[in-house]
Amino acid sequence: MIDKCLGAQRSRKIQRTLRHCKVTILCLVLTVVVLRGTIGAGRFGTPEQDFIEIRDHFNYRSSRKLAEPHRVLEELHTTPSGDDDPNNYNTFDIDKLFIGDEEEDPKHDPNKPYRLGPKVSNWDKKRSNWLKQNPNYPNFIGPSKPRVMLVTGSSPKPCENPVGDHYLLKSIKNKIDYSRLHGIEVFYNMALLDAEMAGFWAKLPLIRRLLLAHPEVEFLWWMDSDALFTDMSFEVPWERYNDHNLVMHGWGEMVYDQRNWIGLNTGSFLLRNCQWALDILDAWAPMGPKGKVRDEAGKVLTRELKDRPVFEADDQSAMVYLLASQREKWGDKVYLESEYYLHGYWGILVDRFEEMIENHRPGFGDHRWPLVTHFVGCKPCGKFGDYPVEKCLKQMDRAFNFGDNQILQIYGFRHKSLASRRVKRVRDETSNPLEVKDELSLSHPVFKAVKVSSSS
Amino acid sequence: MIDKCLGAQRSRKIQRTLRHCKVTILCLVLTVVVLRGTIGAGRFGTPEQDFIEIRDHFNYRSSRKLAEPHRVLEELHTTPSGDDDPNNYNTFDIDKLFIGDEEEDPKHDPNKPYRLGPKVSNWDKKRSNWLKQNPNYPNFIGPSKPRVMLVTGSSPKPCENPVGDHYLLKSIKNKIDYSRLHGIEVFYNMALLDAEMAGFWAKLPLIRRLLLAHPEVEFLWWMDSDALFTDMSFEVPWERYNDHNLVMHGWGEMVYDQRNWIGLNTGSFLLRNCQWALDILDAWAPMGPKGKVRDEAGKVLTRELKDRPVFEADDQSAMVYLLASQREKWGDKVYLESEYYLHGYWGILVDRFEEMIENHRPGFGDHRWPLVTHFVGCKPCGKFGDYPVEKCLKQMDRAFNFGDNQILQIYGFRHKSLASRRVKRVRDETSNPLEVKDELSLSHPVFKAVKVSSSS
Repeated sequence: MIDKCLGAQRSRKIQRTLRHCKVTILCLVLTVVVLRGTIGAGRFGTPEQDFIEIRDHFNYRSSRKLAEPHRVLEELHTTPSGDDDPNNYNTFDIDKLFIGDEEEDPKHDPNKPYRLGPKVSNWDKKRSNWLKQNPNYPNFIGPSKPRVMLVTGSSPKPCENPVGDHYLLKSIKNKIDYSRLHGIEVFYNMALLDAEMAGFWAKLPLIRRLLLAHPEVEFLWWMDSDALFTDMSFEVPWERYNDHNLVMHGWGEMVYDQRNWIGLNTGSFLLRNCQWALDILDAWAPMGPKGKVRDEAGKVLTRELKDRPVFEADDQSAMVYLLASQREKWGDKVYLESEYYLHGYWGILVDRFEEMIENHRPGFGDHRWPLVTHFVGCKPCGKFGDYPVEKCLKQMDRAFNFGDNQILQIYGFRHKSLASRRVKRVRDETSNPLEVKDELSLSHPVFKAVKVSSSS
Repeated sequence: MIDKCLGAQRSRKIQRTLRHCKVTILCLVLTVVVLRGTIGAGRFGTPEQDFIEIRDHFNYRSSRKLAEPHRVLEELHTTPSGDDDPNNYNTFDIDKLFIGDEEEDPKHDPNKPYRLGPKVSNWDKKRSNWLKQNPNYPNFIGPSKPRVMLVTGSSPKPCENPVGDHYLLKSIKNKIDYSRLHGIEVFYNMALLDAEMAGFWAKLPLIRRLLLAHPEVEFLWWMDSDALFTDMSFEVPWERYNDHNLVMHGWGEMVYDQRNWIGLNTGSFLLRNCQWALDILDAWAPMGPKGKVRDEAGKVLTRELKDRPVFEADDQSAMVYLLASQREKWGDKVYLESEYYLHGYWGILVDRFEEMIENHRPGFGDHRWPLVTHFVGCKPCGKFGDYPVEKCLKQMDRAFNFGDNQILQIYGFRHKSLASRRVKRVRDETSNPLEVKDELSLSHPVFKAVKVSSSS
């Protein structure tokens, strides 16, 4: 028995050592590859953090099973409230409000290819004609300023985690603030348009529907509910993407050479309203339908992509696979942006907020002052995240306050600390409020002062 | 003993009868007064419901003690989560995240008159100059279309009621939807700018700060977090208010003659950005400071206003008192609007949604299809509402879905029922999406198609 134990122990030690070597070699390779690719992309991009990001993700992925959270709504058992017990707030069964609302399993014939909708062809021409006929709905609202719709959302059900909805609320406030400053429209979705495409795939039918319903929208900006704006001053360099239709944070080498499943991020991306976009949505969707299709596709993705754990197909892995395997078809219109944090992995950012405040200022959008801090893996709304809940929520509060301070300073306030909900006055009020400028010039930012133009 | 019981019983019966007589007489009087006042105000206003609204409020007020909810945050006791227990979502102490964030009692010298800020004079001239110097920030964004900022908000703390934040989330989504359709900007506040003016008074310092920071905003629209848009098609008749600076739902007779504390509603109102507005905010504020001032002011208001229960001063009662006692100073610039539901008391609306769907269509904004359904007294975020929680939340879901259906129909969907979170397709998709119009013409509404104009 003791020999067996020792044998088992030694065997585990050897396996662990092998795993560590594997990680080390991978990191070295990545270091060389990425350094080679980023020289010349500017001194200030998102290079050094990359390794940490990937390594951290790798470690977590290996150590935890990544499963889509169970959408089991706990019943809050209680005595029925009724009219004679009005103060029984904390203990009533919210699901009683939705009798008959039980979800049915989507019935999809796995032999029939999934379609997002009827094929739409010649969308560019149709859209162009519509824009000409509707000059009051221009697709550019200023010189080089496209009309943008920021799209996000969450489940129509209350979060399984009681504080989850509070964080969703803070998240949408954060997005409203950024969007107001930047002349961007907001669409908050709480409807599941296609039961087959539930979970992370739900964005595809939604995005398609919105593009087709809003020809005036030039760019659709999808943003996850767990992503926060942390640079209120940073304006996306729209002109950089004049020849591109899809912009995601990521690295070419990670996607095309390594086929790494985290080579890009689909939690925050820009999609131009055009035929190409409809086509790529159609090409992206087939791995999404819940059940057998998604499960089988998941196995393909784990096999085909680097370091991907075993779980059902997700939209991000599917996009990596799509681009890597059909580069010649899509690649030239896809911009993998790493010069600023269109998506910024929270793990490598949140401990540096104080350092950023000390050494930098808003407007960079990159590792100095990230545009977006994205709490991947935290899942504040669900029951099963990849990180300890207290750590996630604490850091989400800090990131929220970090961004919120930039809004509050317009009005002469800031949070007492990055950890505090409370605010304090930092600029005295005056009898001549218009003579006082806020430090960041965000009260009337240049990128919001727009003129209507019908140029396309 | 039996004699005493019978005596007590009889006494209660007599008291109940007297109360009923009082109610009946009051209703009769109100009927005469209001009928007299509304003849000629148009066939379709908000007359008949008025009595029910007032009577219902009266009944509830008499039968329940209206107290500001205790802001006692319950600790969710649990074992510490830490890194080795990551899935302990439902049971951790969120307040541990905010050590040192305890609220201090505001120190206000009751002998010193409260000031919202330094006196700002000549604001109209200053603002006018600023607008001339900043033609890229016009205060009118279309012919007869003022730039409007919708302001709302909630506490920075999670709701005491676990589902409260979910309803705040639905509420802000609802407001985002209406605002997007009507070209209105949204400001969601989660900061207490002045600890003395906590609770319902918090809106005053906020509103003042926003007016002064945003001279480009022509109208500030304050809306409570428990008020929902239920008519997405209704555009406020801005030109009606060309000669007014403050628009609230209410009735002149109720305010100026009856001094009834619910003669108007401050849960949804329009305030023009001008000197007059700054002045009325200054005149409105003195009853607000928490503690002795607010308590004493509450007694004055209960004494001076009709049917007001005993509780600390609230902003609505204070406004009634201000207008009634200083009519000559403010009255001519205040528009008490009763032709549509700028605020609509939920109690008389929510049971009629199906009837409205059957007989009417969006766009009326009045009793046929209310612009705003306001869940006064429900307090979904707090612990102590005036109504049974299940009833409130059920009706809030119905009202939300009632409004949301008007958004979803743009995209070819609607809720399965007013009680259901789920949606179903009601219009097939087509290969020619631009040839299909949504029934309500809300995809590109007239009131959103704007041209920039520098006219003031």
